[in-house]
Amino acid sequence: MNLRTALRPPANVDIRDCDPRATPLFPGKGEDDAARLTEKMAPKLDTLQERLYAENKENPTRNVLVILQGIDTAGKGGIIRHVFGLVDPQGVKIHAFKQPTEEELAHDFLWRIERALPGRGMIGIFDRSQYEDVLVVRVDEIVPPQVWEPRFDAINEWEEGLVASGTTIIKCFLHIDPATQQERLLARLENPSKHWKYSPGDVKVRRKWYKYMEAYQDVLNRCNTDTAPWYVIPSNHKWYRNWAVATLLLETLQDMDPQWPVGGFDVAEQIEAVKTSLPAES
Amino acid sequence: MNLRTALRPPANVDIRDCDPRATPLFPGKGEDDAARLTEKMAPKLDTLQERLYAENKENPTRNVLVILQGIDTAGKGGIIRHVFGLVDPQGVKIHAFKQPTEEELAHDFLWRIERALPGRGMIGIFDRSQYEDVLVVRVDEIVPPQVWEPRFDAINEWEEGLVASGTTIIKCFLHIDPATQQERLLARLENPSKHWKYSPGDVKVRRKWYKYMEAYQDVLNRCNTDTAPWYVIPSNHKWYRNWAVATLLLETLQDMDPQWPVGGFDVAEQIEAVKTSLPAES
Repeated sequence: MNLRTALRPPANVDIRDCDPRATPLFPGKGEDDAARLTEKMAPKLDTLQERLYAENKENPTRNVLVILQGIDTAGKGGIIRHVFGLVDPQGVKIHAFKQPTEEELAHDFLWRIERALPGRGMIGIFDRSQYEDVLVVRVDEIVPPQVWEPRFDAINEWEEGLVASGTTIIKCFLHIDPATQQERLLARLENPSKHWKYSPGDVKVRRKWYKYMEAYQDVLNRCNTDTAPWYVIPSNHKWYRNWAVATLLLETLQDMDPQWPVGGFDVAEQIEAVKTSLPAES
Repeated sequence: MNLRTALRPPANVDIRDCDPRATPLFPGKGEDDAARLTEKMAPKLDTLQERLYAENKENPTRNVLVILQGIDTAGKGGIIRHVFGLVDPQGVKIHAFKQPTEEELAHDFLWRIERALPGRGMIGIFDRSQYEDVLVVRVDEIVPPQVWEPRFDAINEWEEGLVASGTTIIKCFLHIDPATQQERLLARLENPSKHWKYSPGDVKVRRKWYKYMEAYQDVLNRCNTDTAPWYVIPSNHKWYRNWAVATLLLETLQDMDPQWPVGGFDVAEQIEAVKTSLPAES
């Protein structure tokens, strides 16, 4: 069994049945093994990313989009730093979605998402995504149910189109429990060099923990399509979380199996041209 | 003497006096030392980048822009991979300028440059830049001298405004000699997994080597302002080139000395709030 199968939630999942402390398919014992195993993946990821980039330079047809969702401190930033930091930054396009601007609010909710999509050959990373429009928007009652309710279907349709056009989507829900969030928020408060990561708004969100879990559960049940599946990443252990997302990316790229493109030129001819192309200094 | 002083070309520089094999101020012996010394810089760069990001989250006032220019194979991509790969990808914004699109050509040459600028707190990297508009455009006679000639002053004025608005600019000319370029182009041709990096157009550019050097020399002489200085990076040795750009970035960030912001909240109060903010499960 690969990790994509192992982390895919079943139909009608009850989020309370997902254990955030679990370490499915992890082939080691703990943090040290995870660091070693993730490091071992780095050169493979690096080569596959370069192949994907190269293949699409000649023939722009496909790319990868990783969507990261999770409550504050679940580890969206940590994954970008530790997993996507393993590959060439030229092949990665990161977009963090904040509160929508006035201009964004003047358009359909998918408008700003579309504009942030990665180009062909790239690995795009969404730090939050279109799912905020059925999560925070629902929990905070920013729009009424008759507005957010049809969005599940709209998202499924939109993602289907995106996949059909050549994008492989990896949707990761980073799952932690309330005790772990408390620990991480307190760690931020206890270290002045981490105060900038903390906002009093984090507590307001925390007060709505179970409302958020209810909203996430609906996301997992209504938008977990075979075309664009969700993965639930147990994220209490940062080392497992990083290993798991790196592994999902590796499995995906290995399946895509990108190839070095064949240059549209005669190699011997070009070697000769390079050797004879320097002019005399004027 | 710091490296910024050492690599700044003198007034009226003759580019032929710049030795691309040199290793100014390098405190070691060769490749192994360079790798070790660059690795030693990584945690410092990482912390300074995070401080810059954090400081500007609260008070968005400044950022860094690194401009990379150089002939094919000089190492623009290598630097992005090996130097900027050392810091959190969330704090880095890379933009590679290609041949201008129709839309870009319908605007002033600085229009597309402006749009690619990094946000506050970010380290922006330009792989090519506004300088293409006095380099390739001049050498290939895409526009006449009366169009490109005034651009030196236009660029200086524009950069002055950018610096006044809070951007620190680091302009790096990656300097190699023709023999090194030949070696690197041949290496690409001899390895099928590197063919995608090669284009027959590279030879066409190589045939104009000395015209390019003349154009670069004018750039170095006319746009090497105290506000936005140029650095000539001897780049025959990849290890020196990477060490040098990492060092320029480190010196710059150390001078900027970004500070962790003070959170606008009462820490004890927030600790209490975190501890008591979990609702009962509904």
